[in-house]
Order: sequence, then C-alpha cells, then structure tokens
Amino acid sequence: MHDRVRFPLVLMLIAVPCGTHAAALDQASLNGATRLRDAALKSTEAYALVESLTTEVGPRFAGTPGDRAGVEWAERELDRLGFRNVRRMPVTVPRWVRGEAQLRIDDDTSRSLVAVALGGSVGTTDEGIRGDVVAFDDVAALQEADRADVEGRIIYLRKRMQRLRDGASYGDVVANRRDGPSAAAAKGAVALVIRSVGTDDARFAHTGSIQYRSDAPRIPAVAISNPDADMLDRLIASRKVPKLHLVSTSRELPPTSSANVIGEIPGTDRADEIVLLCGHLDSWDLGQGALDDGAGVAIAMAAAHLIAQMEPKPRRTVRVVLFANEEFGLSGSNAYRASLDEAALRNHAATLEADSGDGPVYELRSRVGPEQHSLVRQIQRVLAPIGVAPGDNEATGGADTRALLRAGIPVLGPRLDATRYFDHHHTANDTLDKVDPQRLNQSVAAFAVAAYLAAREDATFARVTAPVETD
Amino acid sequence: MHDRVRFPLVLMLIAVPCGTHAAALDQASLNGATRLRDAALKSTEAYALVESLTTEVGPRFAGTPGDRAGVEWAERELDRLGFRNVRRMPVTVPRWVRGEAQLRIDDDTSRSLVAVALGGSVGTTDEGIRGDVVAFDDVAALQEADRADVEGRIIYLRKRMQRLRDGASYGDVVANRRDGPSAAAAKGAVALVIRSVGTDDARFAHTGSIQYRSDAPRIPAVAISNPDADMLDRLIASRKVPKLHLVSTSRELPPTSSANVIGEIPGTDRADEIVLLCGHLDSWDLGQGALDDGAGVAIAMAAAHLIAQMEPKPRRTVRVVLFANEEFGLSGSNAYRASLDEAALRNHAATLEADSGDGPVYELRSRVGPEQHSLVRQIQRVLAPIGVAPGDNEATGGADTRALLRAGIPVLGPRLDATRYFDHHHTANDTLDKVDPQRLNQSVAAFAVAAYLAAREDATFARVTAPVETD
Repeated sequence: MHDRVRFPLVLMLIAVPCGTHAAALDQASLNGATRLRDAALKSTEAYALVESLTTEVGPRFAGTPGDRAGVEWAERELDRLGFRNVRRMPVTVPRWVRGEAQLRIDDDTSRSLVAVALGGSVGTTDEGIRGDVVAFDDVAALQEADRADVEGRIIYLRKRMQRLRDGASYGDVVANRRDGPSAAAAKGAVALVIRSVGTDDARFAHTGSIQYRSDAPRIPAVAISNPDADMLDRLIASRKVPKLHLVSTSRELPPTSSANVIGEIPGTDRADEIVLLCGHLDSWDLGQGALDDGAGVAIAMAAAHLIAQMEPKPRRTVRVVLFANEEFGLSGSNAYRASLDEAALRNHAATLEADSGDGPVYELRSRVGPEQHSLVRQIQRVLAPIGVAPGDNEATGGADTRALLRAGIPVLGPRLDATRYFDHHHTANDTLDKVDPQRLNQSVAAFAVAAYLAAREDATFARVTAPVETD
Repeated sequence: MHDRVRFPLVLMLIAVPCGTHAAALDQASLNGATRLRDAALKSTEAYALVESLTTEVGPRFAGTPGDRAGVEWAERELDRLGFRNVRRMPVTVPRWVRGEAQLRIDDDTSRSLVAVALGGSVGTTDEGIRGDVVAFDDVAALQEADRADVEGRIIYLRKRMQRLRDGASYGDVVANRRDGPSAAAAKGAVALVIRSVGTDDARFAHTGSIQYRSDAPRIPAVAISNPDADMLDRLIASRKVPKLHLVSTSRELPPTSSANVIGEIPGTDRADEIVLLCGHLDSWDLGQGALDDGAGVAIAMAAAHLIAQMEPKPRRTVRVVLFANEEFGLSGSNAYRASLDEAALRNHAATLEADSGDGPVYELRSRVGPEQHSLVRQIQRVLAPIGVAPGDNEATGGADTRALLRAGIPVLGPRLDATRYFDHHHTANDTLDKVDPQRLNQSVAAFAVAAYLAAREDATFARVTAPVETD
C-alpha cells in the first residue's frame, strides 16, 4: 500500500469510496466489528462498572485508602469478567493532603469564597495570609507586570474557560493553574488565587495540579468557583481593592505505593502484539471520580470484555491498563513505560485512551502510519451510523499514552464530546448522576470497534513521529 | 357590588367578559398600570439591586455581620431611591452558628458525604456520633416503625422532592426536615440525616430550619446532597448496612438584634391605607441570598420605585417592608405584626410578598373579598400580555404575610415560577448568576401593576377569612 502514502487523507476518501480494494481487514472482521458495535449499544456493563466503582469505592486520590480500594476493586472486577493475566504493577506515588482551604473577604462581613487548594500547593500558617488582591487575566499578563504591583500581594488570575466540544479552551487556561503559582511568587506575591478552570456556573472550585519552579518560592495557591470569581470581578470593577484572608492546611507526606492494574484478552496468531486500551483508576479526592475517570475505566473494561466474546477472535492481545495516579504526576503511565524494554515497547501496536468523560465519541482521530490509513477509515465507517465523523491524523494521545507516543507507538483516538465535561472536572460534583448510560455505551461501541479492528488488522503497525510538545 | 358576592369567580369570568361595567378603577389608573408594566420590563433597576446586595453584602444570616450589613444596605438604598419614612424596626433574632458538619462512611475509605447541619440543630461532641444507618421514606414511615429498629441508629429519610412549577412538592417533603429530628429522637435515634429538600443533581446540601419538640431529646440533624443520598440509597440497596460517622460543631448563641427595614411611597387621598409589598432581607448563610430572597427584595423595591414615578399617583401608601430573619423563625414579620394596634392593622389594605425567586410570574392568585374580585381581574388583564394567567382566590400568602392574613388582611399573590428555584434554595449555590434579568423584570412588572392598582382601587378592601392551617 506504499504507493498511497503521499495522498492526503482527504483525497483518499474521495478516491476510494468503497475502501474494499485496499482493505487490510477481511469481511469477517468487519462483520464482527458491526456486531460488536451493536452489542455495545445494548450492554449495561459499562454503566454498572461506573456505578460499582463510585458506590463501593468513591474517590481514589493517589496514596489514599480510596486509591487502594480502587486497585482491589479493579483486580476483582477484571477477574470476575474473565480477563487473563490480571495483575498489579506496583507504582510509587506522591502523597499530598488537601486539608481545608478557607478564603474570606477580609472585611467586616468576613464572607467566604468557595475555594480549594491546588494539587501540590503548600499550606499557610495557622494565622493564614492577608493581602490586597491584584487581578490579571492570565500568566502572560502577570509576567509583564511590574514587580512593584505584585510584591506582597495576593494575585488573582481571572481568565475564564470557554465551553467547546473539543475542550480546547482547557489548554488555553490551564497555564494559570499550572504555572501561576511560581510566576506570581517570582515577583514576590504571597499567594495565588485562580478562577477555576471549568465551564460551569455552580459553586464548585476545580482542583488540579500545579508545577512549582525551583527558582521561585513556594506560595499557597487555590482555585475559586466561577460564581465567586464573578463576585471578585464585580468587587474589583467597583474600584475597591478587596483584601483576602487565606488559610490552607494542605501539606505533603512521604511517597507511598499504588498500582497499575492490568488484564488481557489474549490474541490468537499475533498474541505478542498489544493493542492497549486504557484509562486511569485514580481520581481527585473531591468527587467520586465518575466522569474522571470512572467512565474511562468502564469504557476500557467493557470494550475489552465485549471483544472477548466476539468471533472472529482478536489476533493481537487487547491489554487493558488502568493507570495509577494520572492526576497528580502520571506516576502510573511513567512506571508502565519504564517497565518496557525495547522488544516489549516494539510489541505495542497502538494505544487507545479514554479520559474525557462519558462521551459520546464524535470523531475518530488517529496518529498512524500510512499502512494503517485504511484501517482507520474502516473503523470510522463502522462507527459512522452512531455519529462518529472522520478526524485528522494529528492525534496527540491522552496524558497517559503520551510517553508511548513519544516512543513512536501509534494512537487511535476516538474523541469524546467534552461539552459538559469541564462543568464537573476536578470538582466535588463529579458523581455518578453525571454519567449518561446511552452516551457511555456509544463510547464503548466506538472504543471497542477501534480496538477490535486494530487487533484484527493484517498489516504490521508502522511507528509514528510524535508531535512537537510545547510545554 | 354586593349582589355579585355569591357567584364563584369562574362564573364571573364567563358572565362579565369585558369587566367594564363593574370596574372599581378608572381608565387613567389602567393606563398608568400599562405604562408601569412596560417601564418595568425595560428597567435595569431590580437586577442592579440584587447585584449590589450580593456583591457588597453577600449572605445575611440572622444576627451575623452580614445581616447587619444588609440592614445598612437596605436603609441606604431606600434613601437613595427617594423612599419616604425610611426606618428600621428593631427585631430580636436568634443566633445559631452552623459550624462544620463532617459526615463520613465509617469504613476503610472514610469517604465524605456533602452534608450541612440543619438550622437550629445541636452539634455533636468532638468524637462525633457513629451508628448504623436505617432508612425510611419519610417521617410518616418513621413514625410507624418499631422503636427497636430506630433506637441507637442514625436515621436516614430518603424521600426526594419533585420538580414542579408551583413548588408544591416542597410542602410534601419539608416535614422530613422540620419534624424529622424529634420524630427520630422520640424513638431513640442518635442522629438524623435527610436527603436535601431540593430538586437539583448537584453536590450541594440544602439547609433549612427544624423544629425540636419539647418531649424528645435534641439530636444532631444534617441534610446531604442528592448525589450523596443516591449513593447512600445504592449502598443500602446492595444489602449492606452502611455505618456513618457524624461530627457537627453547630451551636446556639444568645439572641441578638436585627431590624426590619421600611420605606414608603406615600399615597394621596387614602395615604393612611397601606398596600404592603415585601420580601425578606435575611438569607441563609451558605450562599449569597440571591434568589432567596435578594430577588424578592429587588422586586419589592423596584416595583415600589417605579410606582413612585407613575401618574396618576397611588392613592394608598405603598409600603415596602424588608423583613428580618424570615429563614430562622419569622422574627421580622412577627415583630411587625406585634407592632400593629387594631387601627394600624385595619389600615392594611392588602399584602404582596415576593419570596420564591426571580420568576417569571405565571399566575395571579388572590385572597380577597368579593368587592375586590373586579380589581383582581383587571390586574390580571393588564398582565395577561406578559404571560400571567388568572388564578384562584385561595392564596395562602407567603411566610412573612401569614400573620397578617390570619388577621384578615387580603392577599394579592403574583405566583413566581418555582421550576428551578428549589435547585438552589438554601444552598451555597444561591448566587447572582442564577438570577435572570428578564425573568426578574417580568416579576417586577407583575408586582408593580398589582400593587399600583390595589393602591388606586376605589372600593374599601374587605377583610378575608384565613385558610385553615394544618401545621
């Protein structure tokens, strides 16, 4: 098929409408994929898995008792569903304790803002920190400010995330959270407050990780809910300089142990090759980890379990990996990558990661070599009746498959609709009721079909070039 | 007009379609009402008032610094708007301090449920209370239970409120909150947990008052959010008996002082007679008191201010009363009622209370004597183009006008659409962004027209018979 390498995908779609004369998949595989799709839509398994995980375990923040209960739950459920080679891969995880963040307007009314400490942030003394608030839109504006306007102040970053199907605004705003604390501290700020990186108008603050730089003091950092940020904006607009009082009891404990949990649906004649289907088992501590990433765990498990019941059998092994500690440092996926020698790495045919909620999948992106363009087209055509459009070949993978992509492992990227996802992401409100069984099943169908056909694909998967990473 | 007394309202509507030959209002008054309606729809004042109150003051729970700031705000704003006889009426209010409620599943994961102490409930010791959970649908089911099934347990009442435009389901479920603590304690329960009386699926617990009986021990009582109640229901359905651990630091302090704030638009030839337009200035402590009852405060103030600018002038005095402490014992309206001697009481022509959010008004209820049936019809006809339907003559008034209704004062009841109101009612999420300027203005128009035409009405207002109260 190398003679078709140089044609852009769009031309291929026009030139080969039937897709049959270049098929790398036999008709039996395509028929199996269609049955798989339809079976997924009727299944109740994925929702039952999220329900069980959120009910029996709840939040699963790295290193907590809930995290350990999650690992036990995953091992038990993979066994129950008949997965093979069910095992734990030990992972060392950091252990940060949120404590309580109290943020008040420092005036006679002393009213509270809904605030949560950002992941990894240091606490305050018992007396807390008092200071005048100075607002900037974002880190870029803060970096252009005079030191005199920042020093001794509490810095507030107010840029709001926009609601988009592809969640792209998250990338625009998340720098406020990740880089804000050190950017503020480098100019002498005493604390950082950010508007939550979230799209809702409910009074939930959204947590998430920060990255302290080694060349700046570590200052406390919290997020406030959108309604509280709105109020702070109004106070500032009324030409008052609000004073805030922050007390945070967050702190770090020594690292502890967790585990990736792995189970497999063995392949037939290409069993050494791996189609990796993954999500992350950990969650933030505030909610139940239902959308993030109970849904992804359920999508991966249910999709693989459906594949196990399908004829013809997958030729490659479908490996489900439920990663430890995605949220607070990618410990699990880094440990997984580190566990692979060159031969094991080379055996990874492709990865599929579910970590953007319950769906539905609206597009099939990919990052595959030309040998797999036909495969991608065939997957999309099976999924077109359930609303999955063709995507580009520029997929960047999710956070947990980034390390494998850097090593050249191809990505199949069913893209989950994130329109509502960032309403609940990293909040106390990420609970089971936010998961829709129909959306979830459609996502299971998309992931199952993609993984199954990848496991049935005749051609050897070509390595890919990872995208340039700007961060 | 006494010859029409015995006709039910529905017959009158059929019999007198034009409503002109029985009019108690001249055409100038009706023209004024129409201009008032249209001016209200274009005004920005009501929203600006809620914005100012929620931004400058925030929560205004009885006896707190915010409550005092609210009283100052109201007096200042009524003065600014040109109200006459602006004054405070001192009110003694109870002082309850919420503290923190921590409710956890008492197992290895020790995960938290989102809980708030119910208003007036006692706290626990520092060690808290541990117990097996026993669930009942409601107080009625609890009262039928054997003492042996309740004694020493933590009782959980799980009935859910339904979403209805008239908010009627609140009345069905609120007994769980109000009467549940003593009903459980009377059978030996150690604590009470209720599913929040609210219609949302967000992780907010809804607070509200309880009534301890003198013949039962005072036990701690908390509400949990709907998602947490769902989880507890699932745990119970899985045939486990969940154990809970409750720590609550709520406590009562000595009573303190607050105030009703009053301002008037003086009438002309019937200035001694009062059309009372009211809401309550206090709020629960958790949110900003935007919908409950910043919206009502703004509706009353903006409606009266628009009336002040209208020709012909109101004949009766339109009195705005912003009551203290509606939420935690009706202190303000009880003090107001107690301040009235028989002559002052008799001078109250009618009451209009706004305390169900931002609207819109969808119906005009009333409880008036036959002499005012024509007035009610004429008000509704002015409001029909903005979606206000005729209602019955069985209005029961709001909580703050109940004492006046018991004394026979007629009620004009523009009914606010409560479809979304109980999503946010008594939660931290009752913030400005929940108030819609268009809905609010439509409500201002309805209240303004009703109050204005009541103040222009020629006939003397007849006393009414209060409804039988079942509680």
